[in-house]
Amino acid sequence: MGLNVAILGATGLVGQKFIQLLEERKFSLSSLRLLASDRSKGRKLTFHGEEVKVEEASPSSFQGVNIALFSSGADVDRYFAPLAIQKGAVVIDNSSAFRMDESTPLVVPEVNPEDIKLHQGVIANPNCSTIQMVVALYPLHKLSPLTRIIVSTYQAVSGSGAPAVEELRRETELLNQGQTFTSQFYPHQIALSLIPQVDDFTPDGYTKEEWKMVDETRKIMHAPDIAISATCVRVPVVCGHSEAIWAEFSSPIEPDEARNILRFSPGVEVVDEPQKSIYPLPQLCEDKDAVLVGRIRKDFSSPTGLTMWVVADNLRKGAALNAIQIAEVMVGKGWI
Amino acid sequence: MGLNVAILGATGLVGQKFIQLLEERKFSLSSLRLLASDRSKGRKLTFHGEEVKVEEASPSSFQGVNIALFSSGADVDRYFAPLAIQKGAVVIDNSSAFRMDESTPLVVPEVNPEDIKLHQGVIANPNCSTIQMVVALYPLHKLSPLTRIIVSTYQAVSGSGAPAVEELRRETELLNQGQTFTSQFYPHQIALSLIPQVDDFTPDGYTKEEWKMVDETRKIMHAPDIAISATCVRVPVVCGHSEAIWAEFSSPIEPDEARNILRFSPGVEVVDEPQKSIYPLPQLCEDKDAVLVGRIRKDFSSPTGLTMWVVADNLRKGAALNAIQIAEVMVGKGWI
Repeated sequence: MGLNVAILGATGLVGQKFIQLLEERKFSLSSLRLLASDRSKGRKLTFHGEEVKVEEASPSSFQGVNIALFSSGADVDRYFAPLAIQKGAVVIDNSSAFRMDESTPLVVPEVNPEDIKLHQGVIANPNCSTIQMVVALYPLHKLSPLTRIIVSTYQAVSGSGAPAVEELRRETELLNQGQTFTSQFYPHQIALSLIPQVDDFTPDGYTKEEWKMVDETRKIMHAPDIAISATCVRVPVVCGHSEAIWAEFSSPIEPDEARNILRFSPGVEVVDEPQKSIYPLPQLCEDKDAVLVGRIRKDFSSPTGLTMWVVADNLRKGAALNAIQIAEVMVGKGWI
Repeated sequence: MGLNVAILGATGLVGQKFIQLLEERKFSLSSLRLLASDRSKGRKLTFHGEEVKVEEASPSSFQGVNIALFSSGADVDRYFAPLAIQKGAVVIDNSSAFRMDESTPLVVPEVNPEDIKLHQGVIANPNCSTIQMVVALYPLHKLSPLTRIIVSTYQAVSGSGAPAVEELRRETELLNQGQTFTSQFYPHQIALSLIPQVDDFTPDGYTKEEWKMVDETRKIMHAPDIAISATCVRVPVVCGHSEAIWAEFSSPIEPDEARNILRFSPGVEVVDEPQKSIYPLPQLCEDKDAVLVGRIRKDFSSPTGLTMWVVADNLRKGAALNAIQIAEVMVGKGWI
């Protein structure tokens, strides 16, 4: 007696990761409905060895659905969410559409699972860069409240979806052949370069992605006073976001203490033997559930600061896995 | 009536950039001697259209030399410097060998040209990551003294020399062909990835490169009390180091004020129209003298902070250009 689950945006990178993870984690399902735009209608995807046909999403698609996993972008998700709720579904939304709505819980299960209960139909999945940062910092925040976070990111192109992965592949190949090209997806060349812009700019000179890291972190941790500043940068990596984080706490935490706490924290794997060149790397996080934390050291520029390097699979913990963990908490606690 | 100049490490990436810049800048020379290890002996390099044979460096190589530009790595430079000085040469050394010696000036001409006069035979050229940071920050520091710097780098492989450029090229090609490989130069794959390690680790968990950014910045600016913490990361870019910088000052500086100051500062070019996706990029800095500064904005996590994105050609301003500018100051001021 499992649940009826629908995936909106099933053919996208995150949609396909949803399918893979429902299978891997043996999520108890009665039925799985795969929904997408009319462009993908009729495509067949495999689930537990069986072909499932992709249907065009429509208001009636959510009839009988218990949990709807959304990852179709903010506009489409915003359109379909009330329709799905009306049919009785709980929506777990991976877009930015509802994250900062006061009535929508924004949840990372390792941090604020209890917030799930407060939902009014939608539970929002945070931004990829935010998720891995709060998973790494929250166990330390519980010991000594965070006062400030400075973070710079090194974000993989898969966070922008399949066309961006294809653009990096294409540009890399053309550069190898010595050919010139015009970038199509990103505003500038990404192969063998980087772009200090993720998402659009706001008038204050920050990007929306940078503000997401500020606003979402505060909301998830229920800590509206943490001072946060971010610089988000796209790098020519296919999978795995990396972050250089400077965290300041109310009182000092020694690096060894931080490592000991993080070793026993949910969703975290400490990878920190720098003398052996062992530290988190994009190629180490791929298809891993854990957020990898390493290069933990004193921030000598602050009396209470720590510096660290945090890497996670942006499609997995940064997107699909976190959403499915939210669903698992609901099932496990009997909240659905 | 020009000077007799010798280049030690003439066949390396920086050595070749020395030759290119001496030519471009019409540096007044009587003679140019190209020196390298015995492996490169007999190779011919072109200067002003004429072939110059590379000689094996020996103690007698510096007879009659006025200025010796060194870029052979710390060990070789440390061996040859006293020999060159003995013959009457002034050594401008691009390695880390002498930078932190109390008797050796560490100079960025835009910041502390007067320190050149204090030399006792060697003038040290700072680390590439440090040079571009101090060129960008010093004009603001003069207005309101810096109290703290947080910086994370995105460093190009050419900073590690020609074998690293070849490794990135080779790995990229093999990945394109779907082949596996073992990295030889770096401890991990650099193509389509990144490595949060530049130089060796010290026992405190920082790398030597990160400490260079701390110690050298303080020495160049004569500001031993600035609190600084750095995370240095190698990225799959051939040329151009990028830096995300958070700078805190004694009193607040508005972003517009910072832009106005930097627009009229030596060695800086402000590239800052984010709404048009115009900001510093590695491909914009290549073969440019200027340090590109953009994404200048308030650091909302600090009452007196600014955040910015700084990119420069690491072989040019980060190495060869800065050294030649030191020589030019000496000639211009009659200090040699």
